[in-house]
Amino acid sequence: MKRSLGSRSIAYPVPVWVIGTYDREGKPNVATAAWVGICASEPPAVCVSLRKERYTHANILDRKAFTVNIPSEDYLKETDYFGLTSGFRHNKTAETGLTPVKGDLVDAPYLKEFPCVIECKLLGHTDVGSHTAFIGEILDVKMDEEMLKEDGTPDVEKLKPLVLIPGSASYYGVGKYLGKAYSVGKYCCSVT
Amino acid sequence: MKRSLGSRSIAYPVPVWVIGTYDREGKPNVATAAWVGICASEPPAVCVSLRKERYTHANILDRKAFTVNIPSEDYLKETDYFGLTSGFRHNKTAETGLTPVKGDLVDAPYLKEFPCVIECKLLGHTDVGSHTAFIGEILDVKMDEEMLKEDGTPDVEKLKPLVLIPGSASYYGVGKYLGKAYSVGKYCCSVT
Repeated sequence: MKRSLGSRSIAYPVPVWVIGTYDREGKPNVATAAWVGICASEPPAVCVSLRKERYTHANILDRKAFTVNIPSEDYLKETDYFGLTSGFRHNKTAETGLTPVKGDLVDAPYLKEFPCVIECKLLGHTDVGSHTAFIGEILDVKMDEEMLKEDGTPDVEKLKPLVLIPGSASYYGVGKYLGKAYSVGKYCCSVT
Repeated sequence: MKRSLGSRSIAYPVPVWVIGTYDREGKPNVATAAWVGICASEPPAVCVSLRKERYTHANILDRKAFTVNIPSEDYLKETDYFGLTSGFRHNKTAETGLTPVKGDLVDAPYLKEFPCVIECKLLGHTDVGSHTAFIGEILDVKMDEEMLKEDGTPDVEKLKPLVLIPGSASYYGVGKYLGKAYSVGKYCCSVT
């Protein structure tokens, strides 16, 4: 039996990413966002939705660029902190001792310590009620060498990303391997 | 040392959702999508990106509605199957024996067997290269009673959602609880 929870922003699991930008004075800022996802393959693109009052919102419009920094479990506290605090009053990289590095391809900084960072150029944006959905073209994905398997694919057991479960405000890790995508369902029913 | 993987649609972890729609003849269709996420809080909204050639793409434009059906690990094979096959040639609910139920609030079907289903009304859409990003307002979230904790919040250890790791084409489960969101980072550094 299903229970209605009403009209709420509950859907899960969602990623936890840290968005890197520069402000007008060139101060690097990092802000946590979970209303995010991939939104296209050609060109590769992400969609990052932010409230209009956030510091990062103006920075993205100004610089037409941002980075996605994917935390590991080792940076859980810093990641939560980057969501609790605002660049209006804080210099978050200085406070946490993490290292902002100027992007190679875009006018935005990434976090040296995070295992995977993605450089994005702003393609467009659209308002959705409380939020603006920023579409960023992925110009480059960089990953720590030791996080890659021998075949060059990401090793999620080393990367240890975070997921958020809206509705219960809880962070979880990624768990056990379940199967190969675009493959395990091939023979799931008799007609295939 | 970071290695560049180039311009690729690699960002992780991403959700695995099954999108429910009706076609023009009223046939229910279910299609798996991972280029998805939450995109606003007021109103609660999701962004679901689909290639233009997918069966679901035309259905959403036609009916102005879709459902998000969140699988549990128990439906891994069916979920993968719903992504491998097309509604152009398949009647996927009939083939897998899952039960499409007409939405209470929108003109789209949800899967009775999936633990969480979300009814969405199309708010708008925008093209991003290969994909169209559909913005759907969440009109209702329904969850199986036994998946809720006593305080009415989702119990992820029972819900057992799937995550996908792009770049390694692998499904994983959600793992261990790591901490309370908007809380664990409060005292992460001395200045707070």
